Amino acid sequence: VLDAAFGGSAGGDGAGGTTIAGVAEAIRTYQPRQVILTARGTSDHAALYAAYLTEIRLGIPAGLASPSAITVYGARPAMDGCLVVGVSQSGGSPDLAEVLRVAREQGALTLAVTNAPDSPLAMTAAHHIDICAGHERAVAATKTYTAQLLSLLLLVEAVREPGSVPEGLRRLPDLARTTLDDPTAVELANRYRFADRLVTTGRGYAYPTAREAALKLLETSYLAALAYSGADLLHGPLALADPDVPVLAVVGSGPGGQSMQGVLERLGARGADLVVIGPVLPRSSGASTDGVRAVARLATPDVDERLAPMLDILPLQRLALAVAKARGVDPDAPRGLAKVTSTL
Amino acid sequence: VLDAAFGGSAGGDGAGGTTIAGVAEAIRTYQPRQVILTARGTSDHAALYAAYLTEIRLGIPAGLASPSAITVYGARPAMDGCLVVGVSQSGGSPDLAEVLRVAREQGALTLAVTNAPDSPLAMTAAHHIDICAGHERAVAATKTYTAQLLSLLLLVEAVREPGSVPEGLRRLPDLARTTLDDPTAVELANRYRFADRLVTTGRGYAYPTAREAALKLLETSYLAALAYSGADLLHGPLALADPDVPVLAVVGSGPGGQSMQGVLERLGARGADLVVIGPVLPRSSGASTDGVRAVARLATPDVDERLAPMLDILPLQRLALAVAKARGVDPDAPRGLAKVTSTL
Repeated sequence: VLDAAFGGSAGGDGAGGTTIAGVAEAIRTYQPRQVILTARGTSDHAALYAAYLTEIRLGIPAGLASPSAITVYGARPAMDGCLVVGVSQSGGSPDLAEVLRVAREQGALTLAVTNAPDSPLAMTAAHHIDICAGHERAVAATKTYTAQLLSLLLLVEAVREPGSVPEGLRRLPDLARTTLDDPTAVELANRYRFADRLVTTGRGYAYPTAREAALKLLETSYLAALAYSGADLLHGPLALADPDVPVLAVVGSGPGGQSMQGVLERLGARGADLVVIGPVLPRSSGASTDGVRAVARLATPDVDERLAPMLDILPLQRLALAVAKARGVDPDAPRGLAKVTSTL
Repeated sequence: VLDAAFGGSAGGDGAGGTTIAGVAEAIRTYQPRQVILTARGTSDHAALYAAYLTEIRLGIPAGLASPSAITVYGARPAMDGCLVVGVSQSGGSPDLAEVLRVAREQGALTLAVTNAPDSPLAMTAAHHIDICAGHERAVAATKTYTAQLLSLLLLVEAVREPGSVPEGLRRLPDLARTTLDDPTAVELANRYRFADRLVTTGRGYAYPTAREAALKLLETSYLAALAYSGADLLHGPLALADPDVPVLAVVGSGPGGQSMQGVLERLGARGADLVVIGPVLPRSSGASTDGVRAVARLATPDVDERLAPMLDILPLQRLALAVAKARGVDPDAPRGLAKVTSTL
């Protein structure tokens, strides 16, 4: 039983799965030459994850679209043969609905991935996947993010091979519970009580996690949290790293994590205050972070890097919550934020 | 005479123009169904500008690719019918060259846009555009950024209509000189002498300017500078804005600037310390920033929003330089940075 939200209030009867299989079949039939994703905020990070999955697992070029080219400048890109996917928790952002409306008009196959089947975005798209996460009460989305990641993973794998479930997926709910039981993230919060800026980094599948962690720390604790892919960090932002700017690095056990080794070494050479999020690996492993001076580690289970984003974000969400509490800030009432953001 | 670098040491004999016309003809013949851009750091912002141009002016879907899907995970997206463009000042990043090598192998039309005709990136691509900016002595690229923007604009316009030169382009060198003569940016530097974080924002064509300004402030003055599109700012990061976090907003006189009005109002309501970069507009204009409480303004000429990125970045580069000097930092020796960054 793959509960879409890992123990949330999801339907739990596999209804989402049926829908995902149907949408996957429609995509297989359509054979898109390109996948264009559009989203904002937290959903944008789920969309970024889906872009990696699409290129790596399906061999289809994928990218994130800037809605403003269409909604502000009136661009009408030729999108026949494209799959255009809007990802949004509320499905209420008018600009995303407008992108999907134009995409449909331009001949694209359109899909909305939301937690709100009656939303404008879901209504606009030809296909809809309900992430079945139940009512999201937090303004800073958490369980809907995980459910978006899971839905998009199931979709991509079903397009790749109908009926398939990624190995290890059924263990995720248990692993998520174990990860959430670990108190390290909460203990670590004191370290950032007085920090005013912070850098997060990761590569490949771990990069969306780094971005989402930065957004959560920013919107609940008002930390100036800057997220960079490990590679981009070396092109400029590394200058920021010094012992006074904490760095959170998401480092998995697969190719993405291995490609972070040089970045971790450079950060170590700069005396960065480094915390590593990821599995603790034996010294013999290629992705060993031994020799890298990390002041602390948020241990997460050693799973395939495709699955890791659903686990690695958990201690980071808890960290953001604990930092907010340590600062006396109410994370359920971020200043200046509304749940549905209307931009055109 | 369109000097590629606005008075830099470019060839200046129009050699770049000839090349651009030839590449444009090859693109017209190929009729790409999609444009994929790949770049890092400052060049990534020029690539983002080109993505907007491609969608708005050519009606071809465009997006930025994450090299890691290909270079780290071995993805082999089907890229026949695609134009894949690598943008890099030095042309020396191995990961970009690898993306172009794979793209070529996969049947894509490939193009390198560099300041180094003999570089690995230029050698790997089927076509090459030399931005003719002359030797870039600054580690924090400035004139090569402007020359990248100009080259990409000329290319897109030549694909749209062979032989065409955008209206107003020939005035740019004079306007750039006037903009650089304005001392306001230098005077403003004192305001940020003790700032440790800062937000930059803009929409559409102005968004790459916001991102590049943030990177310049970060790599020369070690400011935690966060860049958001105006729309994304409202999805979370607005929580960061308060009177203690300065905001630099790039606001043009066209659709992108008009779409920023709501963002400026929200920032005003939060008491943000706002500085607006853009033309001073009459009250009757739709994009008027009257009524928005800006503490200062970096005035730039009122030109088409397509051309504005080549002017708007100038006072922001000067601001970054002046802030670095005020802090006693050497902007020509950013800590931890090398000119050619090697990531795989």
